[in-house]
Amino acid sequence: MPTANPILLPELRLMLAEHDTAGLREVAEELHPATVAEFSEGLDNAEIWRLLDAVPVDRQAEIFPYYPLPRQVDLFMVADRPHLGALLEWMAPDSRDDLLRDLDPEFVEEILPLVAKAERHDIRMLLSCPEGSAGSMMTTEYASLPAEITAGEAIARLRFQAPNSESIYYIYVLDAERRLLGFVSLRDLILARPTSLVAELMQKDVIAVRVEEPRERVVEQLARFDFIAIPVIDDRGRLVGIVTHDDVLDAVRQEATDDAQRIAAIAPLGEGYLEAALVSMTWKRGIWLTILFATAAVTAMVLARWKSPHEWLIAFIPLVIASGGNSGNQAATLVITALSTGDCTLGDWKRILRREFVVCLMLGLLLAIPGFLLGLAYAPNPLHALVIPATILSVVMVGSLVGCVLPLIFRSLGLDPALMSNPFVSAIVDVVGIVIYIGIALALLGS
Amino acid sequence: MPTANPILLPELRLMLAEHDTAGLREVAEELHPATVAEFSEGLDNAEIWRLLDAVPVDRQAEIFPYYPLPRQVDLFMVADRPHLGALLEWMAPDSRDDLLRDLDPEFVEEILPLVAKAERHDIRMLLSCPEGSAGSMMTTEYASLPAEITAGEAIARLRFQAPNSESIYYIYVLDAERRLLGFVSLRDLILARPTSLVAELMQKDVIAVRVEEPRERVVEQLARFDFIAIPVIDDRGRLVGIVTHDDVLDAVRQEATDDAQRIAAIAPLGEGYLEAALVSMTWKRGIWLTILFATAAVTAMVLARWKSPHEWLIAFIPLVIASGGNSGNQAATLVITALSTGDCTLGDWKRILRREFVVCLMLGLLLAIPGFLLGLAYAPNPLHALVIPATILSVVMVGSLVGCVLPLIFRSLGLDPALMSNPFVSAIVDVVGIVIYIGIALALLGS
Repeated sequence: MPTANPILLPELRLMLAEHDTAGLREVAEELHPATVAEFSEGLDNAEIWRLLDAVPVDRQAEIFPYYPLPRQVDLFMVADRPHLGALLEWMAPDSRDDLLRDLDPEFVEEILPLVAKAERHDIRMLLSCPEGSAGSMMTTEYASLPAEITAGEAIARLRFQAPNSESIYYIYVLDAERRLLGFVSLRDLILARPTSLVAELMQKDVIAVRVEEPRERVVEQLARFDFIAIPVIDDRGRLVGIVTHDDVLDAVRQEATDDAQRIAAIAPLGEGYLEAALVSMTWKRGIWLTILFATAAVTAMVLARWKSPHEWLIAFIPLVIASGGNSGNQAATLVITALSTGDCTLGDWKRILRREFVVCLMLGLLLAIPGFLLGLAYAPNPLHALVIPATILSVVMVGSLVGCVLPLIFRSLGLDPALMSNPFVSAIVDVVGIVIYIGIALALLGS
Repeated sequence: MPTANPILLPELRLMLAEHDTAGLREVAEELHPATVAEFSEGLDNAEIWRLLDAVPVDRQAEIFPYYPLPRQVDLFMVADRPHLGALLEWMAPDSRDDLLRDLDPEFVEEILPLVAKAERHDIRMLLSCPEGSAGSMMTTEYASLPAEITAGEAIARLRFQAPNSESIYYIYVLDAERRLLGFVSLRDLILARPTSLVAELMQKDVIAVRVEEPRERVVEQLARFDFIAIPVIDDRGRLVGIVTHDDVLDAVRQEATDDAQRIAAIAPLGEGYLEAALVSMTWKRGIWLTILFATAAVTAMVLARWKSPHEWLIAFIPLVIASGGNSGNQAATLVITALSTGDCTLGDWKRILRREFVVCLMLGLLLAIPGFLLGLAYAPNPLHALVIPATILSVVMVGSLVGCVLPLIFRSLGLDPALMSNPFVSAIVDVVGIVIYIGIALALLGS
C-alpha cells in the first residue's frame, strides 16, 4: 500500500552506526521531505545533521522546515555557522522567516552576514512585517510575467523561473513598476493557443491582500475564492509576495487551537501539549486561574454578607450560578466563533441581542420548570419554592446577555474576542447570579 | 484597488427591474463566481434565478456552489426540474454531493432521472460514502495519465482533459485497472524534456487516503505534505477521487467551529449563528443545559444534607467549586485540542496524567495561598481557615484529573472527545468539589 512508509527509526540508527552514507543519502533523497523529517525526529541533533549532510544543501533546505519549529531552533544552535548561511539561502523565504522569528535576535545578527546579499535583503523585509500580518505569512518566491508576451513565451519563461518558485500554478502579471495588473493560471496558459497574449488571457479582477492586513483576512479571502495562493501588495499596489494555501491551512489549524485554549482561559501554549515546558504551562494556566480566583473572591465576599433565615436556599447556590454560567458560555462561544469566521460582525449587535433574548427566554423557562419541582422538595411551601425558578430564569437571561456582550465589547476595543474566555464569563455571571439570587429571595421571602 | 469590487446589490436590483439582460450577463460572466454569489445573496430566489439565467448553464454551475448550502437548497426547491438536471450535470462532483446530501432524499430521487447516466452513476457513488469520510469530501474529476507516454504527449492529453478537472496541477498515473502507480505535478511536466517518459518523472512514493478513512486523516495528511490535493483509493488501490485543498480548508474551519461549540456544550449549529432557526438553536442549547441542570441538581441535593455549625464556610462554596471547574476546563481543553490535532494519542495517557499531576500541584499551591489569606478574613481562627487552602489544592488536582481523563475515555470509546464539554466537566467537578469541601471541613473542624 502506498499510504505508509516502511522506513523506521531503528534502521536509520543502524545506518548511522555503520556510517552507511549511501543508505542515509537514499533515505533523505528519495522520500518526501515531510516523511524524512518525521522518521528522523527521534534522532538526536548531531545524528540529524549527519543524516542531512548526506545530501546537498538544497535538499537539506527542503527537509529542514518539516521539523517542528522548536526543533529547528535547537538544530540551528548546534550547527557550524557557515553551513547555516548556505542553508538559509536555500530555504523557502516563508519557512526561513518563521525560523528566524523564533531564534534569538542576537544569534540572527551573527549569522545574517553569512547569507548572500540579495537573500539578506529579503530576510530583513519579511522580518520587518508585524507578527500575524499578511506580510509575516508570505513568501517572496512567486512566478511573474509581463502582460505583452504570448502564452508560448510565457511557458518558456516559466521553465526558467520555476525552480525558484514555491508555486508556479498562479502567475502574476506585473507592469514595469511591479504593480499587479492581473493573474493567469498555469492551467489557462497550457490550454491557450501559444500565440495568445498574456494580457488577453489574464484575469484583471485580482483579489489581493495588503501586506499589513491581519492573518484572518488572508484566511477569509483565500477560503472564499478557493485560491491556491493569494497575492500580497503594498500600499502602492506593487506585488511584494504571495501567501500559499499550505501556510493558510497551518495558520487556521494553529488559530483554532489557540482560540480553544483562550476560550478555556489558557494563554495559548503555541506548541504541542506534550512538548510544552511544565513551568511555562503552569504560568500560562496560573495567570488566568489567579484572575478567576480574584473574581470568585468577590462572590465569596458578597455571599458572606448574606444572613438568610431560609437555610434551604444555600443548597441551591451552585445550581443557580451554574445555570447562568452555562448559558453565558454558550452565548459567548457562539458569538466568538461567529465573529472569528466572519459569520457576523460588530454591526450585527442588535440582531445578536434580539436572538439571545428570545432563545434565552425559552431556555430560562425550560429550566425554570425542573427548578420549581426541585425547589418544592426542599422549600417549606410553594411560594418559597418560587424563588428558584424566578432566579433561574433571570440568571439564564443575564448570563447570556453577559456572554454575548463581552466578546462584542472586546472586539470593538480591537482585542481578540476569544480572550473573553468561558471561565471568565462564568466568574462574572457567578457574582451577578448570587446578587440576583439574594435579591429575589429578599423580595419574595423578606429578610 | 484590486481588492474590492464596486458592484453592489442596488445596481443588480436596477438591472433586474429594467430587464437589462446584457448587464446581468456581464456581472455573472466577468466577476469571480464567489463574488457574483456574494453580491447577489441579498436578492430573493426568483431574482437570483433571473440573474443566473442570463448566462449559460456551465457558468451557472460555477457560481451556484458559492451560495451558502441552505440557500442552494431553497433555490433548488423553487426551480423547474429539467433545468436542475442540467445544472447538476455541470456542477463539480464534490459541490454537487454536498448539496444533494442536504436535499430531501425523495426530492433527490425525483430529479436524478433528469441527470445523464454517467453523472448519475458518479452521484450515487459519492452519496454512498458515509458522512465525514474521505469519500464524502472527494471529487471524481481529476487528471490521470498512463505511465508509458512522454511528457510532451502528457501535456497534449491534459489539454484535452483539463476542462473537466477541478485540478490539473497534480496528475495521477494509473495502470490499466486504474490502480494508482504514482503522481506527477504539472510543474514537473513543464520543466521536463518533452521526450522524458511519465514513468521516469513520476513520484512512486504516493501518499493517499482510503475512501472510508475519516475526515481528520485527510486533513492531517494534506497538511503534513503541503499538497494541493490528495488522492483517494479503494481497498484494491484503485483511484476513486481526489480531495482538493480548498475543501480541506473549509472542513478545518467548520470542524474548529463545531468543536468550539461542543466544548461550550452546544450541539453544533452547522450553520451561521444569524441564520440558525431560533427553535433549532434553543433545542441545541437546551438539551445540554438540561443535562447540566440534572448534574447541578445532584450538587444541590448533596449540599442540602449538610448542616454545618460553621456558617462562614457557606460563602466559600462558589469559590472552591469554581477553582476545580476552571482547572478542569483547562485540562479538558488541552487534552481535546491535543487529541484533535494529533499532538498526542490515547497511548500517551500516562504522560498526560503525569504532566497534569505536576502542573496542577503547582497551580493548586499557587491558589491555596490567596485562599488561606481570604479564609483568615472570615474564619474564627487560622486552623479553621486552613479548610479553604486544603480544599482548593484538592479540588484543583481532582478537577484537572477529571478534565483530562474524561476526554481520553470518550476517545477510547470511539466518541468525539469534544463532547466532553467544559460545562460538563465543571458540573462533575462541582459535585466532587462539594463532597471534598464537606469532607475536609468535617475532618478539620468536626461536625
